[in-house]
Amino acid sequence: MTQLTRLPQWQALQAERNGLSNFHLRAAFAADPARYARFVRTLVAGDARVLLDFSKHRIEARTLDLLLELAHARSLRTRIDAMFAGERINTTEQRAVLHVALRDLSSRPLQVDGIDIKPAVAAVRDRMLDLAERVREGRWTGHTGAKITDVVNLGIGGSDLGPQMMTVALAPYHDGPRVHFVSNVDPEHLRTTLVPLEPASTLFVVASKTFTTIETMTNARAARRWLVNALGTEAATERHFVAVSTNAKDVAAFGIAPANMFEFWDWVGGRYSLWSSIGLPIALAIGRTRFLQLLAGAHAMDEHFRTADFGQNLPVLLGLLGLWYVNFWGAASHSIAPYSQHLARFAAHLQQVDMESNGKRVNLEGDVLEHETGPVIWGEPGTNGQHAYFQLLQQGPALIPVDFIVAAESPFADDAQHRILVANCFAQSATLAIGKTAAEARAEMTAAGKSAQEAQRLAPHREFPGNRPSSTILVRRFDPFTLGLLTALYEHKVFVQGAIWGINSFDQWGVELGKQIATKLAGALGDAKAPVDAASAGIVGAWREMRSQK
Amino acid sequence: MTQLTRLPQWQALQAERNGLSNFHLRAAFAADPARYARFVRTLVAGDARVLLDFSKHRIEARTLDLLLELAHARSLRTRIDAMFAGERINTTEQRAVLHVALRDLSSRPLQVDGIDIKPAVAAVRDRMLDLAERVREGRWTGHTGAKITDVVNLGIGGSDLGPQMMTVALAPYHDGPRVHFVSNVDPEHLRTTLVPLEPASTLFVVASKTFTTIETMTNARAARRWLVNALGTEAATERHFVAVSTNAKDVAAFGIAPANMFEFWDWVGGRYSLWSSIGLPIALAIGRTRFLQLLAGAHAMDEHFRTADFGQNLPVLLGLLGLWYVNFWGAASHSIAPYSQHLARFAAHLQQVDMESNGKRVNLEGDVLEHETGPVIWGEPGTNGQHAYFQLLQQGPALIPVDFIVAAESPFADDAQHRILVANCFAQSATLAIGKTAAEARAEMTAAGKSAQEAQRLAPHREFPGNRPSSTILVRRFDPFTLGLLTALYEHKVFVQGAIWGINSFDQWGVELGKQIATKLAGALGDAKAPVDAASAGIVGAWREMRSQK
Repeated sequence: MTQLTRLPQWQALQAERNGLSNFHLRAAFAADPARYARFVRTLVAGDARVLLDFSKHRIEARTLDLLLELAHARSLRTRIDAMFAGERINTTEQRAVLHVALRDLSSRPLQVDGIDIKPAVAAVRDRMLDLAERVREGRWTGHTGAKITDVVNLGIGGSDLGPQMMTVALAPYHDGPRVHFVSNVDPEHLRTTLVPLEPASTLFVVASKTFTTIETMTNARAARRWLVNALGTEAATERHFVAVSTNAKDVAAFGIAPANMFEFWDWVGGRYSLWSSIGLPIALAIGRTRFLQLLAGAHAMDEHFRTADFGQNLPVLLGLLGLWYVNFWGAASHSIAPYSQHLARFAAHLQQVDMESNGKRVNLEGDVLEHETGPVIWGEPGTNGQHAYFQLLQQGPALIPVDFIVAAESPFADDAQHRILVANCFAQSATLAIGKTAAEARAEMTAAGKSAQEAQRLAPHREFPGNRPSSTILVRRFDPFTLGLLTALYEHKVFVQGAIWGINSFDQWGVELGKQIATKLAGALGDAKAPVDAASAGIVGAWREMRSQK
Repeated sequence: MTQLTRLPQWQALQAERNGLSNFHLRAAFAADPARYARFVRTLVAGDARVLLDFSKHRIEARTLDLLLELAHARSLRTRIDAMFAGERINTTEQRAVLHVALRDLSSRPLQVDGIDIKPAVAAVRDRMLDLAERVREGRWTGHTGAKITDVVNLGIGGSDLGPQMMTVALAPYHDGPRVHFVSNVDPEHLRTTLVPLEPASTLFVVASKTFTTIETMTNARAARRWLVNALGTEAATERHFVAVSTNAKDVAAFGIAPANMFEFWDWVGGRYSLWSSIGLPIALAIGRTRFLQLLAGAHAMDEHFRTADFGQNLPVLLGLLGLWYVNFWGAASHSIAPYSQHLARFAAHLQQVDMESNGKRVNLEGDVLEHETGPVIWGEPGTNGQHAYFQLLQQGPALIPVDFIVAAESPFADDAQHRILVANCFAQSATLAIGKTAAEARAEMTAAGKSAQEAQRLAPHREFPGNRPSSTILVRRFDPFTLGLLTALYEHKVFVQGAIWGINSFDQWGVELGKQIATKLAGALGDAKAPVDAASAGIVGAWREMRSQK
């Protein structure tokens, strides 16, 4: 594949960016009353809406055309079709990438290696949702016959962040047992989570594709000890543990019945797995019907992504706009600002989806890239962020694009207060774009009674440069269907960027080396005579010494 | 003040950085067995330890000397002394910066405008801790005489992030009422927090310096309605609300008795306020004795910062190392990786401390800077991050320094499991530094049975470039005293960088404009005829239309 930076479409974008050196959003809005209308797209799916306002970006109509030409030049359509067709686009692991199959509730066949995978997907989903309903209705009970009141998901990475984000996001829809998430190998995570729980009414979900993940299995064994100690028999394990895994042998050896293991497949990447059996904690919290709505929402985004013209295609637009700043304006990070407290974990989930996918330095052919790839993804819910780090977004030297995500209405809470939330969201994007000139700052201060000299001194500190880009994503409400739409939107955004950069967004070799070294070091911490690598010897010695000083 | 970039010390660092273009940490550790010993410093404070291992940075001994020379050239010592002396170093607001006074439990006088502030500090602290103890012991009861079981802190920004981070961090030490934090103006935040609570046994802390913060006051009024509706009388307010504020008039009008208002001072910035009455929720959770230990730990760091030679001074070293990457290696963000689940909110707190302080583009004189300032601060606890975004840290194209923070021991939980946590922490810093060459990756794969051709194809994907810098901060354990040390360490790191950059780290004018615009837009959302600015008209119209489609 040609190095991306040598493509004429890339070079045209470089020229475009240079031509926009004096572009300012304040002037752009003043000059063109139709700017918003030019740069807004809406996806309608039943009652749900996803509106993308990208008028507050450093683009003109021509810029958008050039970005779309780059997408075509990189055969994005072919890449999308290859994913949906089940081709082995994860070329370093020789795997298909088919999380989209998990949310296609139709019976339309999908072949992998000549076998239709859809019946197996439906069968496991039915078994998983059936378990969820039995627990929710009290038909599945603990060893003593007690109803399950608390579920603890034991998993890490994709087996934690996705289901946790979604469970938290859908808090207003919870009508099942309380659901807790323990991920960290830090023993304090499990210990403090279990303190208020009753063993007799607690169900553990052990979520690990291989059933060997060190964090998850260490916590699972500790949880089993806690349970067995309390209930007095190993036999209790079977009523208090289920597994989401593909390792039937080790699952059985742990004490979990085969009927209570829910499998998934090698074409489901961890960070895209909340739609599979990994979503069991979500289903336990919100129930079968709403879980299916969640899948249906994601599927609606899949169909949009697969079929809509790129100029109307929300994931394509979001991906191109992100790339525009990473590659042509030097943006190293991208901030996610959901104006919803329930979306508190949305950025943490996207950190994995985006950074694990596109944090790559070689292309599919193994050549080291001549350009940047995935940015750092970070953010906290608004309005909280406004009182913390928005200072830097508004007045720091760096360009950091922001995605504002907000719902038009709040079905469960006070509408007047929700309007204040929405007003703050819109105000931040306007402020970032328009700014405040030093002259305006001076005039405000003198009007408020400050001396001309003092106003002059303070004006540079109270000036806002503006011209800072953001997208606003407006939905009707954050219900299960819409959360499916939104989450799939970002999955596909990441796909778009990876396809254009020519990287493999679906492997994660960068996590392997740390595991190897950790295993060696864990041995060395337990045995003072074990060899330690040169970079670790000093700190390992310090650790040992600190523990011996009492 | 001379523009920083024209100083000879700056230019010497630029030359040093160019000379290190071929530096690699793998070679540096191989060449110098004393590297760790050269680049480690330990602060001893009673039983506590803070060890900073900075051997895994792109530095040689000479680099450190040059960085220290820059600090001297920028009169860092004078700046530190000015802060501790109570000078008005927040020059745009003409205020002193004296959060250090809040944790100095000695009676050593400290004059501001000729008045010793220490007696007032001690008096308010005593009143605040007395309230905490009365609530904890059941001597303060609710309107019906019920003991307080739950406390809800209503505050945002510094009135939320600091006390929340610290309360969560000290979870193993909680022996008071449950403490909840509601910050967001999103009405769902308060609504879902209140669902499981009993009005008769719930105490609200309204934390707002001005008692006008829109989020906090909106939530406070909603909370009062919830309480009064349940208990049947406005008179209940007095037993269920206390305030941390300076606005005695509005506090009284709200229905809070003067004795239950705890003030602080204009020389306490919001992001440095957890040591003041804003720390009330912490004191409610852990009690007087441990709260005083927390202050004592922070004071120990203050004394170290104020008196230690820069070459031994942990905040100075941490500040200089951060600046080295921001200004000379193009690092745009800095990742915080605490290996402790209880430190889940540490990075969110540091986001405010760092980014609100140093997200500035003009120097003290108002000149636009020719260099970058504060980086984006972000991160999640380890080991979780390893399964999410560490892929990008290990194999992405960008340089992102990481601070690893870990405790040698876990006093409450399984020691063997804690060793796995520590091993993972040390392994990540080693992996980032040393990496794995393509030749090593090939050899591993062929040893594991892959063909030479396949190993060749995959090697670039499984290569780790290494040479990625990190600090490791090792403490004995995360107890209240040590959390005081650590939090103050980062406060002073931010001070060091701000002093060298020549900016005002203590104002936050960047939050003002958004508030103005939000107030206008809140009006416009409620009144279709109100005027809306050009950048907001489109999205406000879309919001209105989306709500009207039912």
